Amino acid sequence: MKALKDGDSIPERMLAAYLTDPMQIELRQIPVPQIRDDEVLIRVESVGVCGSDVHYYEHGRIGRYVVERPLILGHECAGTVVRVGDGVHHLRVGDRVAVEPGVTCGRCPACKSGRYNLCPDVQFLATPPVDGAFAQYLAHRADFVYRIPDDMSFEQAALVEPFSVGLHALNRVRLQAGERVAIMGMGPVGLMCVIAAKMKGASEIVVGDVEPRRLDVALQMGATHAIHVGTQAVGEVVQDLFGGEGVDVGIETAGNPAALTSLFAMVRRGGRMGLVGMPPIAENTINVTQFVDDEIEMCGVFRYANTYPAGISLLRRIDTSSLITDAYPLSRVGEALERARTNKAGSIKVMVYPQR
Amino acid sequence: MKALKDGDSIPERMLAAYLTDPMQIELRQIPVPQIRDDEVLIRVESVGVCGSDVHYYEHGRIGRYVVERPLILGHECAGTVVRVGDGVHHLRVGDRVAVEPGVTCGRCPACKSGRYNLCPDVQFLATPPVDGAFAQYLAHRADFVYRIPDDMSFEQAALVEPFSVGLHALNRVRLQAGERVAIMGMGPVGLMCVIAAKMKGASEIVVGDVEPRRLDVALQMGATHAIHVGTQAVGEVVQDLFGGEGVDVGIETAGNPAALTSLFAMVRRGGRMGLVGMPPIAENTINVTQFVDDEIEMCGVFRYANTYPAGISLLRRIDTSSLITDAYPLSRVGEALERARTNKAGSIKVMVYPQR
Amino acid sequence: MKALKDGDSIPERMLAAYLTDPMQIELRQIPVPQIRDDEVLIRVESVGVCGSDVHYYEHGRIGRYVVERPLILGHECAGTVVRVGDGVHHLRVGDRVAVEPGVTCGRCPACKSGRYNLCPDVQFLATPPVDGAFAQYLAHRADFVYRIPDDMSFEQAALVEPFSVGLHALNRVRLQAGERVAIMGMGPVGLMCVIAAKMKGASEIVVGDVEPRRLDVALQMGATHAIHVGTQAVGEVVQDLFGGEGVDVGIETAGNPAALTSLFAMVRRGGRMGLVGMPPIAENTINVTQFVDDEIEMCGVFRYANTYPAGISLLRRIDTSSLITDAYPLSRVGEALERARTNKAGSIKVMVYPQR
Amino acid sequence: MKALKDGDSIPERMLAAYLTDPMQIELRQIPVPQIRDDEVLIRVESVGVCGSDVHYYEHGRIGRYVVERPLILGHECAGTVVRVGDGVHHLRVGDRVAVEPGVTCGRCPACKSGRYNLCPDVQFLATPPVDGAFAQYLAHRADFVYRIPDDMSFEQAALVEPFSVGLHALNRVRLQAGERVAIMGMGPVGLMCVIAAKMKGASEIVVGDVEPRRLDVALQMGATHAIHVGTQAVGEVVQDLFGGEGVDVGIETAGNPAALTSLFAMVRRGGRMGLVGMPPIAENTINVTQFVDDEIEMCGVFRYANTYPAGISLLRRIDTSSLITDAYPLSRVGEALERARTNKAGSIKVMVYPQR
Repeated sequence: MKALKDGDSIPERMLAAYLTDPMQIELRQIPVPQIRDDEVLIRVESVGVCGSDVHYYEHGRIGRYVVERPLILGHECAGTVVRVGDGVHHLRVGDRVAVEPGVTCGRCPACKSGRYNLCPDVQFLATPPVDGAFAQYLAHRADFVYRIPDDMSFEQAALVEPFSVGLHALNRVRLQAGERVAIMGMGPVGLMCVIAAKMKGASEIVVGDVEPRRLDVALQMGATHAIHVGTQAVGEVVQDLFGGEGVDVGIETAGNPAALTSLFAMVRRGGRMGLVGMPPIAENTINVTQFVDDEIEMCGVFRYANTYPAGISLLRRIDTSSLITDAYPLSRVGEALERARTNKAGSIKVMVYPQR
Repeated sequence: MKALKDGDSIPERMLAAYLTDPMQIELRQIPVPQIRDDEVLIRVESVGVCGSDVHYYEHGRIGRYVVERPLILGHECAGTVVRVGDGVHHLRVGDRVAVEPGVTCGRCPACKSGRYNLCPDVQFLATPPVDGAFAQYLAHRADFVYRIPDDMSFEQAALVEPFSVGLHALNRVRLQAGERVAIMGMGPVGLMCVIAAKMKGASEIVVGDVEPRRLDVALQMGATHAIHVGTQAVGEVVQDLFGGEGVDVGIETAGNPAALTSLFAMVRRGGRMGLVGMPPIAENTINVTQFVDDEIEMCGVFRYANTYPAGISLLRRIDTSSLITDAYPLSRVGEALERARTNKAGSIKVMVYPQR
Repeated sequence: MKALKDGDSIPERMLAAYLTDPMQIELRQIPVPQIRDDEVLIRVESVGVCGSDVHYYEHGRIGRYVVERPLILGHECAGTVVRVGDGVHHLRVGDRVAVEPGVTCGRCPACKSGRYNLCPDVQFLATPPVDGAFAQYLAHRADFVYRIPDDMSFEQAALVEPFSVGLHALNRVRLQAGERVAIMGMGPVGLMCVIAAKMKGASEIVVGDVEPRRLDVALQMGATHAIHVGTQAVGEVVQDLFGGEGVDVGIETAGNPAALTSLFAMVRRGGRMGLVGMPPIAENTINVTQFVDDEIEMCGVFRYANTYPAGISLLRRIDTSSLITDAYPLSRVGEALERARTNKAGSIKVMVYPQR
Repeated sequence: MKALKDGDSIPERMLAAYLTDPMQIELRQIPVPQIRDDEVLIRVESVGVCGSDVHYYEHGRIGRYVVERPLILGHECAGTVVRVGDGVHHLRVGDRVAVEPGVTCGRCPACKSGRYNLCPDVQFLATPPVDGAFAQYLAHRADFVYRIPDDMSFEQAALVEPFSVGLHALNRVRLQAGERVAIMGMGPVGLMCVIAAKMKGASEIVVGDVEPRRLDVALQMGATHAIHVGTQAVGEVVQDLFGGEGVDVGIETAGNPAALTSLFAMVRRGGRMGLVGMPPIAENTINVTQFVDDEIEMCGVFRYANTYPAGISLLRRIDTSSLITDAYPLSRVGEALERARTNKAGSIKVMVYPQR
């Protein structure tokens, strides 16, 4: 194991924030994790709060994933490498890095065919029973740790995780430069889809949400037209904009059946749709006759694969500072989760800083 | 215009079968059509009865397409070129040909991008107000007329039209050699999907239908496993066959919401689905949570594009004689349509012979 | 035919510049062209001089295309619609438009499959025997005429033609956002590839040329690294930049065997190459062993297809004014061609203004 | 480690055939390999002799790969699982299996993106310094070991390895059902390309070689037209066959510059080429002007990825017995290699049986 080059010593114990029961966060002193030969130890600098963290915090489960013993949440993270396994050659102590939270097996058909996001044996940070990153240090397999440029902040590096969802979504629907895209839902993932669409050269980016504040941020991030769902009829706006031609690509991130229906009406004949959001009611209705007649293509989007190097290089060109609306030290993770839970209209990304 | 080389003279008038009212077919003597420079005149030898013909016959409309004046039905046709427009260079009098029934504009974005099946200005035989092929002669734009090999029968050449739907469906879902496919609905289009899947090297072809007779034919055409929907639980059969792995690709041709649900359950994580059948109730339910979680890809399949040369070369290798279950001369088109309407369990393809 | 709405009357005769012999341009008064029902008449406002115009001007031929009678050159053009055929519905008198110069048949297999740039019957402006756009008016099939935004200049609209080559090149090699690209040759087409790569989100754009001035312009257009071929070793620069990893995509626009060899050395294992430039000596050497071992993919790029709407929406975001280095009225087309012929180092795009 | 269920006991030592010097094979008694938790032990039943085995045998090296210490050759192998690592769940003692010889890291960008054939850290059987399969037992990572159907012979299972090259080649060039393909070189890999093309529904399979005997076998395997290179002009034959239209896809397996040139002339405008064979002289000439003008697409084909399950299901449908021309026990591996080296015209696949 390579020696730590800078003056910092790594302590033997560290603070970590555990979800012990729904809505109960408890700070504990635990040993700093040991690393295997293929891992690095990362001093965690920033961790974004994701909707899934909030859901585990509030309900203690997401679908079949149940928090059965105290769990460390947090998976959108970045930090500094402080220890390097003997088998790791592409990273060094002191490297500033973004962390891809899902560690995959590399040996199943999904992994071997390039779709490792579908690996059944993935170990994903903060998905039970795997602990996450609301802690001062994190051991992680080195091939899922990526060096970031000097001019990229740790906050932005943590955003590479949700941005990867957006980038994967736009990859899945094969957005081409010069095409029109509509994106429903301007939560963090929707906003990341806006940035991804802009980076890929979308000619028009129409966004929809019920929160005017989120629409404003979307316009800052590159959206060209904002639809205030509730006061504006989506179909009419699109008709006005494009004279009935529709958009080439639609992305649903709201997890809202009405949004899906609206989006469907916006997409041109022969167009493509990507579904990212999971609705509270699993069953949604689709007009199959129109789907067939218009030869629509629709794909599910689950996490991401092979997005990190591109994601880092693309996101660094964008000023994302307005996306970080709230900041908390590790000692106040409970408040951070509560803030994200109760201020959905106002907070975009709540960020936790484990070294503060 | 090139002279007719063989001894046959082309008459000035011909017989054609008109749908005058729902369930009313009337034979009329009309002038043989004139051809333009870019057209050929075809002596029609065989015309398959399609489900859409039966639907127009029974209801006088399909969705927004309404039969407002007497209409000649029939669009799955083959015959012999008897007259060639001055601007046509790839066909000669005497050529035996298959006819692609949709004549497209060639100038809209859909046509220019290779998806001419989505051309808004298509002129499609037997879709109001365009007359079809239940007639002794047919004028057709020559670039949609394809020479067939000497060893291909006119019946089989007429089947290239529904086969094109099957081939396009399997193209759209990008079936790869060695993959597993499930196909729901063993009507003519479903059977054509079976043949297309076999030709493309599918390793397993699971089919489902409520009619045992259709399942038998499917097995003859290349299906490897038949599920009798109603007496067999689709999910259990697939579980038994593949140990819970599912199929790579699913095709829905039944236009049946329950079939769509079953198919969805059969497709593996990361799999692809093609929807060909249009259900009577447009709105179907889809489990969006599973769709996203499994990163399913689903596409509508509307008619076909760029399938004819391949379709001819592929279909000729298959013995399709058992698919032609009924034969009628032109004078009995009404009976042919009635047969197709009332014998859905027993008849697969009813064929009309305009020269008999 | 729709009446001209604005006050301008269309004259009966117009000026056009003919190439009568190599290096001989002659201005003639000829009738303004009549339009067919599917055409529009365009008052030509700006026409870029292309390398092919210069080649015809100098040699009277390009390969198998020979100027056998006086020919109007010029095909990168934009203007204003002044007359509209009866069958044209998407354009109106007064529309400012970009002109796609190749009019295709819409009926051959190439056209039908979406690759109309390979149509054997294309009528391409300024390719013998089809006259081009160095004239005051031009009749053109309306489906190849595209409205431009109010804020796009005619000069820039004329640039959509060479930009289409760049966009098609980057489409052909499937450049993904976040990938690295190297582009050899910074003539107008190479520069357009730079813009296309930037619009598609390339993370690094390495360019090479022998002319420092062209490299400066490339950096203005979005290139991130410029290699001065001749004084810098291409391979070493790339090694320094990327630590031996190479670029994902390489584009050759110089038509230079040495550039092709250099590019080949720069592309990573599994990478892709697009060849746009045609070398003076047709036969080039390729290291087939390395090509196989590295599983390189290489494609030819010939003109473009389906690029105009996207091209217009993308190019308008870029300040291309520095690309227009020279301006001439129609009466001085000979000088314009001579300037382009003799000032390859300094002139980027020579523009002709037929209304001046 | 799971116990061996059948009566056979596994010995402690086994025979293996070592290449000790060029053209020198030495049989040695060595310990049966130990397996790790993620491996299985395979009793090797059949091993095909590959051209690379012969090359190492004759020259002691292939390019940068040098045999520096005694090496066991052989990598096209099949056998029976006799011992299963504790971490292996999909295989059992007694399973009959095909072995994919390249064991990849699963963690590099090539592996993660689905192109594990480009993994720089691959451990490939019989590529120095990794020992191969000319031995009675083989330890191999279980995720690269695939169960075969009961009706598939071990010989055929060994052929899945070269068939994978053919399948990967046809995948890389995206051969569609109904397309025409030309394949140059009817050695084992060329023949496997023929089978792959047939399985994928190629409409015409034109093959070329200098050996009439190999052409006969190609016709047995599914080729539709054989060209005897040397006595027949390739271009003329294709012209006669297809009226100047050319083939959609060309595959070069001969490693012969003249074959590449011929193939290039056969491929239609817009067609695709796959290069599998490595020529003795790395530098080949390509007509770049034609390459660009015809918008040809050409790709290198290196080994294969994700082909085994499909390869097994496809190959079992073919009678490949005529491909096995020579059989040797393990004790006569030297003769097997000598036979393959000296009888290129007559021998197709020389097979070694380590249990005989």
